[in-house]
Amino acid sequence: MGESKKRTELYELGEFRLIDRITEPFKSPKHNETVFGTGDDAAVISAGNDECYVVTTDLLLEGIHFDLTYFPLKHLGYKSVIVNLSDVYAMNAEPTQITVSIGLSKRFCAEDIDELYSGIKLACDRYNVDLVGGDTSSSMTGLTISVTAIGKAKKDEIVYRSGARVNDLVCVTGNVGAAYMGLQLLEREKRIFESNKTAKPKLEGYDYILERHLKPEARKSVIAALKEAGIKPTSMIDVSDGLSSEILHICKNSNVGCRIYLEKIPIDEQTAKMAEELNIDVHTAALNGGEDYELLFTVPLEKHDAVESIEGVRIVGHIVEPSLGAFLVPPAGEDIKITAQGWNALKKE
Amino acid sequence: MGESKKRTELYELGEFRLIDRITEPFKSPKHNETVFGTGDDAAVISAGNDECYVVTTDLLLEGIHFDLTYFPLKHLGYKSVIVNLSDVYAMNAEPTQITVSIGLSKRFCAEDIDELYSGIKLACDRYNVDLVGGDTSSSMTGLTISVTAIGKAKKDEIVYRSGARVNDLVCVTGNVGAAYMGLQLLEREKRIFESNKTAKPKLEGYDYILERHLKPEARKSVIAALKEAGIKPTSMIDVSDGLSSEILHICKNSNVGCRIYLEKIPIDEQTAKMAEELNIDVHTAALNGGEDYELLFTVPLEKHDAVESIEGVRIVGHIVEPSLGAFLVPPAGEDIKITAQGWNALKKE
Repeated sequence: MGESKKRTELYELGEFRLIDRITEPFKSPKHNETVFGTGDDAAVISAGNDECYVVTTDLLLEGIHFDLTYFPLKHLGYKSVIVNLSDVYAMNAEPTQITVSIGLSKRFCAEDIDELYSGIKLACDRYNVDLVGGDTSSSMTGLTISVTAIGKAKKDEIVYRSGARVNDLVCVTGNVGAAYMGLQLLEREKRIFESNKTAKPKLEGYDYILERHLKPEARKSVIAALKEAGIKPTSMIDVSDGLSSEILHICKNSNVGCRIYLEKIPIDEQTAKMAEELNIDVHTAALNGGEDYELLFTVPLEKHDAVESIEGVRIVGHIVEPSLGAFLVPPAGEDIKITAQGWNALKKE
Repeated sequence: MGESKKRTELYELGEFRLIDRITEPFKSPKHNETVFGTGDDAAVISAGNDECYVVTTDLLLEGIHFDLTYFPLKHLGYKSVIVNLSDVYAMNAEPTQITVSIGLSKRFCAEDIDELYSGIKLACDRYNVDLVGGDTSSSMTGLTISVTAIGKAKKDEIVYRSGARVNDLVCVTGNVGAAYMGLQLLEREKRIFESNKTAKPKLEGYDYILERHLKPEARKSVIAALKEAGIKPTSMIDVSDGLSSEILHICKNSNVGCRIYLEKIPIDEQTAKMAEELNIDVHTAALNGGEDYELLFTVPLEKHDAVESIEGVRIVGHIVEPSLGAFLVPPAGEDIKITAQGWNALKKE
C-alpha cells in the first residue's frame, strides 16, 4: 500500500475531515429521489408521493464499540438496533425496518447468536420495527455488527440539522454523560478483576448509568410528544458523540451560533456521583461523553411553554447570530468556547 | 459465555440452518409496507403507491472475503458495491442508493481510503447509484466494509425466488466458475511468493478470471434486455454462492425440481485452462465456486426463442415436478443429484 506515496495518517485528519474527504465526490446525487445524502443523521429518499424514506447505518466492532468481557450479548443486540433507531428519530421519522449483518468468529456458538438476536428482537418489538434482511459471515477476528435502519415520514415533517434560526431555543432530552460514566465504572471494575480474579465487581447503586451504557433507549416518546404538542423542531440531531460535538453540527449546518447554560445541562445524580468518585469533571463527561442517544433540537422561541411542559425535555440554551460563535455560559466567570472533542477513535494512541 | 450451558457449534449448524434459526422469530412483519422480509436476494418494502423499494446488505471482512496482499483497494471498493447491486438486479429492480460503512485499522492512511472510495465512486457512476450515507469507525483488527443497497421497481415487476413453474426454462447469464479460478490462481501465486520473495507472479493470459475475482460486474444489461424483450422471469437469484446452491434455493422456494444439462453450463476457456493447470474439476468450480455475480433465472417455455436471442444468456435446463428432484444431467451416464456445497465459511477448519 504505497511506501513511496504520500501518507497522511488518519489521526492527523480526524474523523470529521476524513468524512468530508470521503463524501465530497458524492455531493451531487444522480437521482431526483435522493432528497438528502450524507451529512445528517440519516439520508432522505423521496417515495414519489408526499412520503419520504430515511436510511441510516451504524457499525459496531468488538474492541472499539463494545467489550464482551462485560457486555451481555442480549444487551449488545438491543443496543445495536437502538443506536440506529435514534438516528431515525433524529430526522423526526418513524423507524419501520432494519437489516442486521454479523461477522462471527468460531468462539461463538449458536446459543450465543440466539442471545444476540433475542436482544435484537426485543428492540424490534418495543420500537415496532421489522427485521427484513442481513448477512451472516464468519470473521477472522472480533464480532462485527452492522445495522441499517429505514424509517418513514411525510416530506414536510423531516427535520434536518440545518434549520436552526436565531432566537430558537436549544433543547435536550433526558440527561447526558450517564452512558460515559457507566462505561468508566465498567472499565474500572474490569481492571480490578484483571489484577485480582477473586474480586467481585462493585456495581451497586449504579444501575442507571450501567443501563445507559449497556442498554440505552431511543427517544421515541419525545418525538410522539412533540407531534402531539404540534411542535416541529427547526433542527435536530441525536447525541451520540457528546453534546458539544452535536451542538456544533447544528451550528455549522444551520450557520448560527449558540449559548448553552452550563447549569441547565441535565445530569443524573448517579452520573455526578460516579464522576466525583472517579475524579472526572462531570461537565466534561456530560458534554463530551458520548453514546447518550438523547435528542438535541431547536424550537422557535414562541414554543417555550409548550416544549417546557413535555416530560423529559430541558431547555438548555438558545441560538444566536453566527458571528457570536458557540459558547458555554457558566454560572459565573467568562463564557467558554465549545469545542468538539467528540468521537476520537481514530486518534494516535 | 456460558461454560455450563448447551453449546451448539456454528459448523454443526451450517450457514443455512443458522440463518433459518436467526430469521424464524422475525417472520411476521409488523408493518403492512413490509411486503417481503428475509429469505430472498433483497427485502421488499412498499412505497405506498405502485412502487416498491428493495433493500439488501453485504458484509465484506478482511481475511474472509478479501486478502489485501493481492487485492487492490480500488478494486475492493468497486467489488463491495457490485456484490450488493447484483442482489438488487436479482429482484428485477434498479439500484438507486447505497450506504457504505467502514472499519479501519491504523495501518491505513488517508490515501488508502481515497483508493477504496475511488472504486466505490466508479461503481456508483457506472451503475447510476447515489452514495447517501455510511459510518466510519476505527477497527482493532482487519478492514471491515458493510454496504447496503436500495433499489426500486414497480410492485408487479419484482421477481422472487419462489415463482418458478414446471416446464420453465432455467437460464444463466455470462459464465460461471471464473471468479473462483481467478482466486485459486491468486492464492497459488501468493503461496509461491511467500516461500520465495523474489518470485514474480505468473498471471499472464489469465486477465479475465483475475478480473472476475477482483473486479466483478453486475448484470445490469441483462435486466435491461429482458425488459426490452418483454420477458419477466418467473424466478431469479444472483449467483454468489455457486450455481448448485442457487438453483436449490429456487427449487426449494418455488417447490419444484429441475434438470440442469452439464454440457450447457457456460464456462470460459480461461476458467477451463486454469482448472486443468490446477487439477481442479472444472464443473465443480463452475457449480460450487461462488462469487460469479451472474443471474440465474427461469422463464416460461414459450419465451425460449426470445430469451435465447439475448446476448449473454444461456438456457441450461428446465423446471420439473418437485417429486423428480434437482439433478444434473451429464452427456452420458446417470443423473447426479445437486447438492449445495455453497458458502462454507462457518466450517470447522
